[in-house]
Amino acid sequence: MTQVKQIIYKSHPDGMPKESDFEIKTTTIDESDLKEGQLYVQLLEVSVDPYLRYRMVEVGGGFEPFKVGQVMNSIALVRVITSKSDQFKKGDIVTGWSVPWQEYSILDATGVQKIPDVDVPLSYHLHSLGMTGLTAYFGLLDICNPKQGEIVLVSAAAGAVGMLVGQIAKLKGCKVYGIAGGEKKVNFVKQLGFDDALDYKGVSNMDDAIKKLCPDGIDVYFDNVGGETLEAVMINLRNFARISLCGSITEYNNAESSKGPRRYFNLTYANAKMEGFLVARWKDQFPKAIEELAGWLKEGKIQEKIDEWKGLENIVPAFIALFTGLNVGKVVVKIAE
Amino acid sequence: MTQVKQIIYKSHPDGMPKESDFEIKTTTIDESDLKEGQLYVQLLEVSVDPYLRYRMVEVGGGFEPFKVGQVMNSIALVRVITSKSDQFKKGDIVTGWSVPWQEYSILDATGVQKIPDVDVPLSYHLHSLGMTGLTAYFGLLDICNPKQGEIVLVSAAAGAVGMLVGQIAKLKGCKVYGIAGGEKKVNFVKQLGFDDALDYKGVSNMDDAIKKLCPDGIDVYFDNVGGETLEAVMINLRNFARISLCGSITEYNNAESSKGPRRYFNLTYANAKMEGFLVARWKDQFPKAIEELAGWLKEGKIQEKIDEWKGLENIVPAFIALFTGLNVGKVVVKIAE
Repeated sequence: MTQVKQIIYKSHPDGMPKESDFEIKTTTIDESDLKEGQLYVQLLEVSVDPYLRYRMVEVGGGFEPFKVGQVMNSIALVRVITSKSDQFKKGDIVTGWSVPWQEYSILDATGVQKIPDVDVPLSYHLHSLGMTGLTAYFGLLDICNPKQGEIVLVSAAAGAVGMLVGQIAKLKGCKVYGIAGGEKKVNFVKQLGFDDALDYKGVSNMDDAIKKLCPDGIDVYFDNVGGETLEAVMINLRNFARISLCGSITEYNNAESSKGPRRYFNLTYANAKMEGFLVARWKDQFPKAIEELAGWLKEGKIQEKIDEWKGLENIVPAFIALFTGLNVGKVVVKIAE
Repeated sequence: MTQVKQIIYKSHPDGMPKESDFEIKTTTIDESDLKEGQLYVQLLEVSVDPYLRYRMVEVGGGFEPFKVGQVMNSIALVRVITSKSDQFKKGDIVTGWSVPWQEYSILDATGVQKIPDVDVPLSYHLHSLGMTGLTAYFGLLDICNPKQGEIVLVSAAAGAVGMLVGQIAKLKGCKVYGIAGGEKKVNFVKQLGFDDALDYKGVSNMDDAIKKLCPDGIDVYFDNVGGETLEAVMINLRNFARISLCGSITEYNNAESSKGPRRYFNLTYANAKMEGFLVARWKDQFPKAIEELAGWLKEGKIQEKIDEWKGLENIVPAFIALFTGLNVGKVVVKIAE
């Protein structure tokens, strides 16, 4: 019997998630409960992502909602302490999409995969070589098929997904513009190789700001925010433009209170499409994509940026920070070495 | 010198177009003004279409706006009276996209095409074999690629485009549902072969009504209306659904006053796309499409329905009737035999 700390989902947030919507508890776990096909694992690093907010609702749009009272979970890296599966052995580092926020857990081996054998810092497996990287890769390349010389705009450009989208678009020979909040983020994005970036803070008219940033219009918009930015994009679309829907600030509460993008009908005049995706649809192509991403990383063609927090008690603050605009790059919380 | 009647665009409508936004005038036309490369033509039949409303604005979204004081124009059929072009001869029936609403006109030969040589009533060249038919054909087949057994929903199903979309979807082996206003239209749509149809009049909750009409969800939505119907579709999308944007009641005024579709972010959860189009993009494929449509028509695989009005003075009332829900099928105004 081991005493372990865990984070419980306590209440559905009303708007912005607060620390009081979660609770740290202590529970006991008995390694001898381990059954055939299961793993006893230690939590190493936790990925916090905006999409988790979409699960913090009573009725979910497309993700399985968290139930009040359950242990929180997310994508994470764990170390196998004891294995009763012939797929994994002691010491393996594995990742899963629904790993409990709990120091030690018993997991079904079917719910985890080994991380790819690439010599990079562990946290990269939660970013460029993990779900975030795959989201950027497929959400840009498969949904938008950007071509050499096309104009690509990325919102939340300094965020975990956006920073990769912009860099991949540059690799494809596109002209890449970013939108981010604050000078620090704008500079970060430019240093990554974006052709230019807009600081949305202090912008009074988003329509004018986007037109000034992209005077020749937009072929591809990778949308991490929705709202006014998406509406401004609608009047700056080039013919046959593509919009990849990845995130929306207007949807953080729930779909009922959301506003749709005015001027969506401009998609007609521009022969343009707006397409949404869940990255799991490309599951079969993950290994090949990760291989390509790892190659780019090794050759220095894409840069990494990890915003590392420490300790189980900081998972929730790190998650909340995603919505207050504090983070640059990928937020990861390290629990153990 | 000949005295001819014409219809002048008098003012930008505020909301619904009114007869007073137009004016019938008499002008003189001199056939001897005809220059090389021009045609002197008689107006035979005029097509009135909802998209003309999008041109009745000061600043256009994607169509060239009408200017106050100009002669109105639209797609129409005319007979060549005198030709100074070697492409056309006296007696040819030709069609153009911007034919003046005027009994006789001088047109550049480059702006018109001969109608295809198919033995059908003349008005069919404004409907199933004209721009309307091409809109239905490409807007459904190219944007949505409906597959055998898929569920297709069409709004304004008894209208000129909708009635063809539904029939083409049936030809492709789809399960087809329509939405229309009033019992007469619903019966018309069912008689065309739609599997079922919803009368939106008297519907108090569109979400529930759509869910009841399409309990297994929607693979393809051909949208002629936007608004609440589009919002209801968003929560009934099947995985990999496609929405073809053809019309939007919310856009009749202008894009600024429009509301976007709430729940658009559900496109994400459904891996779905929403795509707009202007039919001109498939210009190169028009002849082949018209050949196929003409074949279906001759074999009785698609039914026609022309709502014929008569007389130049009735073009405007016929156009206005598009927005008051009076018409079933394609509205055409016959000016001369």
